[in-house]
Amino acid sequence: MLKINSEFSLSYMNANELRSFIGKEIKLKGTVYKIRVMSGFAFIILKTGNMFLQCVYSEEFSRFPLSEIKNNMSVIIHGSVIKEERSRTGFEVRIIDFEMLSCAVSDMPVVINNKEIDTAIETLLDYRPITLRNMKEQAIFKIQAGICEGFRKFLSENKFTEIHTPKIVFSGAEGGANVFKLDYFGREAYLTQSPQFYKQIMAGVYERVYEIAPVFRAEKHDTSRHINEYTSVDLEMGFIESFYDICCLETKMLKETFEFLKEYYNDELALLKADVPVISEIPALNFTEAKEMISKTYSRKITDFEDFEPEEEKLLCEIIKKQTDCDFVFVTHYKSSKRPFYAMDSKENPEVTESFDLLFRGLEITTGGQRIHSYQTQVDKMERRGMHIEPFASYLMAHKYGLPPHGGLGLGLERFTAKLLGFQNVRYATMFPRDINRLEP
Amino acid sequence: MLKINSEFSLSYMNANELRSFIGKEIKLKGTVYKIRVMSGFAFIILKTGNMFLQCVYSEEFSRFPLSEIKNNMSVIIHGSVIKEERSRTGFEVRIIDFEMLSCAVSDMPVVINNKEIDTAIETLLDYRPITLRNMKEQAIFKIQAGICEGFRKFLSENKFTEIHTPKIVFSGAEGGANVFKLDYFGREAYLTQSPQFYKQIMAGVYERVYEIAPVFRAEKHDTSRHINEYTSVDLEMGFIESFYDICCLETKMLKETFEFLKEYYNDELALLKADVPVISEIPALNFTEAKEMISKTYSRKITDFEDFEPEEEKLLCEIIKKQTDCDFVFVTHYKSSKRPFYAMDSKENPEVTESFDLLFRGLEITTGGQRIHSYQTQVDKMERRGMHIEPFASYLMAHKYGLPPHGGLGLGLERFTAKLLGFQNVRYATMFPRDINRLEP
Repeated sequence: MLKINSEFSLSYMNANELRSFIGKEIKLKGTVYKIRVMSGFAFIILKTGNMFLQCVYSEEFSRFPLSEIKNNMSVIIHGSVIKEERSRTGFEVRIIDFEMLSCAVSDMPVVINNKEIDTAIETLLDYRPITLRNMKEQAIFKIQAGICEGFRKFLSENKFTEIHTPKIVFSGAEGGANVFKLDYFGREAYLTQSPQFYKQIMAGVYERVYEIAPVFRAEKHDTSRHINEYTSVDLEMGFIESFYDICCLETKMLKETFEFLKEYYNDELALLKADVPVISEIPALNFTEAKEMISKTYSRKITDFEDFEPEEEKLLCEIIKKQTDCDFVFVTHYKSSKRPFYAMDSKENPEVTESFDLLFRGLEITTGGQRIHSYQTQVDKMERRGMHIEPFASYLMAHKYGLPPHGGLGLGLERFTAKLLGFQNVRYATMFPRDINRLEP
Repeated sequence: MLKINSEFSLSYMNANELRSFIGKEIKLKGTVYKIRVMSGFAFIILKTGNMFLQCVYSEEFSRFPLSEIKNNMSVIIHGSVIKEERSRTGFEVRIIDFEMLSCAVSDMPVVINNKEIDTAIETLLDYRPITLRNMKEQAIFKIQAGICEGFRKFLSENKFTEIHTPKIVFSGAEGGANVFKLDYFGREAYLTQSPQFYKQIMAGVYERVYEIAPVFRAEKHDTSRHINEYTSVDLEMGFIESFYDICCLETKMLKETFEFLKEYYNDELALLKADVPVISEIPALNFTEAKEMISKTYSRKITDFEDFEPEEEKLLCEIIKKQTDCDFVFVTHYKSSKRPFYAMDSKENPEVTESFDLLFRGLEITTGGQRIHSYQTQVDKMERRGMHIEPFASYLMAHKYGLPPHGGLGLGLERFTAKLLGFQNVRYATMFPRDINRLEP
C-alpha cells in the first residue's frame, strides 16, 4: 500500500532565500513573463513564486538558442546564481538550460507585461484571466489578500470568533426590490444582502463575531461605486456602551491593518505608489452638522435632507482633509427613516439613529451602528413601520431570550481596496466584478 | 469636532487574566448562563467573553435578593476575586452587586444550559439562534473557526494567496441539474457549485491560491451527509509534478491543523471529547484496488464499478483503520467517466484520471487531482464529451495563453468538522444548515 507522507517541500523561494545560492547552480520553476533582447544577451523575467526574477540569457553560458524560450511558457530553469552588484537584488541568475513544462498556443490579445496594461477598463475586465497576470494587477489583489489577513489578525487578537452564515435565505425576511430571487426546491428564496440577522444572533452566542464573505445586491445602479456582488467584512460586538465603541474598534482595526500592510506588503504598495494613511484618530460629525458644513463651505443648497449625494461625500472628505489632514471621517446619527428597522434610535432624539457611516477619500466604505437589543422595543419599531413580525420569528428569537446591548459594522472590501490604492472605479479592485452588464468572466 | 481615537479597550478577560485580580474587586460584563441554588448560597455561571465563569451568590456578601438575577440576563457583575483552592480555576468571583443591561422576556422553549441539549435534531435546528448558546454547541463552532484559522495559517506559510471569486456565474459554464438558477437582470445565471474555474485561472496568476467560501448544490438528496449550501476550502497549486503533490500538501495541512487545534482549542476539544488524529502519513489505494479490497474483505458483490456506495466508503475506512490505524485514506485514479472534463487522464491508462478523494472516518471530505493545463488537450477532451467550447471561452483563456501544470482540491468544512467531532450528521457541524426541507433560521 502506498503511503502519502507529509513531507511537502516548498521548492519556492524569495530573493533572500535565493541569495544564499550565490556561486551555486539551481533549478527554478516559473513562467516567462517578459523577454528583453539586448545587444549580445537578453533579460528573461521569470515569474517564480511571488517573485519577478531577472534572469540572463547569453550565448556565452546558455546552451540553447534564444528563440526556443517564449513568453508565457512554464519552464524549469537550470541556472547559476552569480553575484552582480548592478542588480537590485545583488545577484543574477544565468540561464544554462531550461525544460518546457507547458506553453501558450497563441500570442496575448492584450499586452500584459508592460508596467501598465494600456487598455480601456472593459477590455481589462473582459480579459481578466490574463490581465490579472500583469505585475501591477497581481499587486492589487495581493494587497487585498493582505487587508483580509490584517483584519483577521486584529479580530482574532481581539477575541472575535469567525462565523459562516448562509447566503441563501428565506424570502420573507429582508425582501425589497434589491434582492436576487431564486427558486429553492419550489420555495422562493433570496441571496443575502448582508449577514446582519445572523451576526446579531451570533453576538448573543459569542459576544464578538466576524465574517468575511460575499453579499449580493440586485441594485440596478451602473456607477463606478457599485457592483452587484461584493466581499463584505462584517463584525458584531456585544456589551458595547454606545456605537462609539464600534467606531473606536474600527479606527484601531484600520490603524493596525495599515501597519500590517506596511510591514508585509511594502513591495506591492511601492509598486502601486499607494499612499497608506497613518491614523491615530478619526474625526466624527453628526449628519446634520456635516450637511451644513458642506452647504456652508461650498455654498451649495441642501436638496436631500435625509441622505448624502455622492458629490457631498466627496466634498465632506475634502473639507475634513483640509482641516485635520485625515483621510477618513465618521458621519453619525443618520435619520431613522433612512436606516433599517433594527437600528437603535437615539434617546435624545428618536428621529435619528445611533448609527454611523465611515467615509474614506470621498466614498462610504462602512455602515454601522448600535442595534436594538430589547425584544419589545424591536417589535414596537417594526409595528410602527407596518412590518409583519411573523416572518422574522427566528431572528427575533435572539431578542426574546435575551441579547446583550450590541452593535457592529459592515465594510466593503473592494471599495476599501480601491480607495486605498487611489482607484476611481471599484472594479479595478474587484477580481471578477459582477455588475448590471457583466456576468463574465 | 469629535475625534474617535483608536484606544479600543478590550474589557474582556480569560481565566488567567482574572487570576491576577485575586484580592481585588472587579466589574465583569456577561450573560447569566445558569443559576444553581445550593443550600445557603448559589452558583451563578456567567458567560463572559470566551469563558463560562463560576460566580458565587450569598446573602453574606451579595447586596441583592437572589430572585432579582435571572437566566439569560445580560449584566455587569460587581464582584471580588477570591482565592479558592476547590475551584477548578483556583479562584471564585463573589458577586457583590449587579446591574442589568438587558433581559429575556420569556423562558427558553428548550433547555440549553445543561451539558447536552436533550432534543431531536429538528428542534435543535429550529431553535438554532438559542441552542447555539449551549456550551457544547459553542465549542463545536469555536473549533470550526479554529480549523479555518489553522488552514489559513498553513496556507499562508506555504505562500498561498487568498482569493475572492464570484458566486453568481454565467449559466453556460457548468450547468447540469444540480445548480440553483437565478434571474440576473434578465439573464439566466446560477450559483456556483465550486470556484473550480476561477481557482485554476488564478493558479496561472499567483501559482498558489486558496479560498474559503460558500458553494451551492441543488441536489435533492435528503441524507445525513448532504446540505445544499456549505463552506468549501479550495486550493489550487501550480508547478506540481503529479497529483501526489496535492495529497502530500493536504496530509501536511491536516497534520499541522490538528496540532494547531490541540494547542489553541484544547478546552473545546476536551469538552466535546474529540478524538483528534495524529498523522504522519496517509495510505493511498487506487480505486479498483480499493473496490476489490472491500469486496474481498466483506464478501460483497461489486455492483457499481465506477463509484463507491456510501456503505463502501465506511467499510474501506474500517479496513484501513484496522490495517494501519489511520483514520484517513486516499483513493486515487477514479474513472474518467465519473470525473469532470477538466480532470487530467492518466498517461498509462486514459480510462482513469490523475485524481483522488480523501475519506475520513467513513466519509469523503475532499475531492482533488491534477487538471489539464494544455489548451489542445482540454479542447479535445471537451469535444469528445460533446461539449460546446464557446461558453467556456473565458475559462479556456487561461489555458490558451499558458498555464503551468497544476492541481488542487476542495474540502467540505462542515463534513470535516463533523467527522473530527464524531457526529453522524453533517448538520450538527453546520451553524445554520440549508437542506431540501430547511431554509430557516
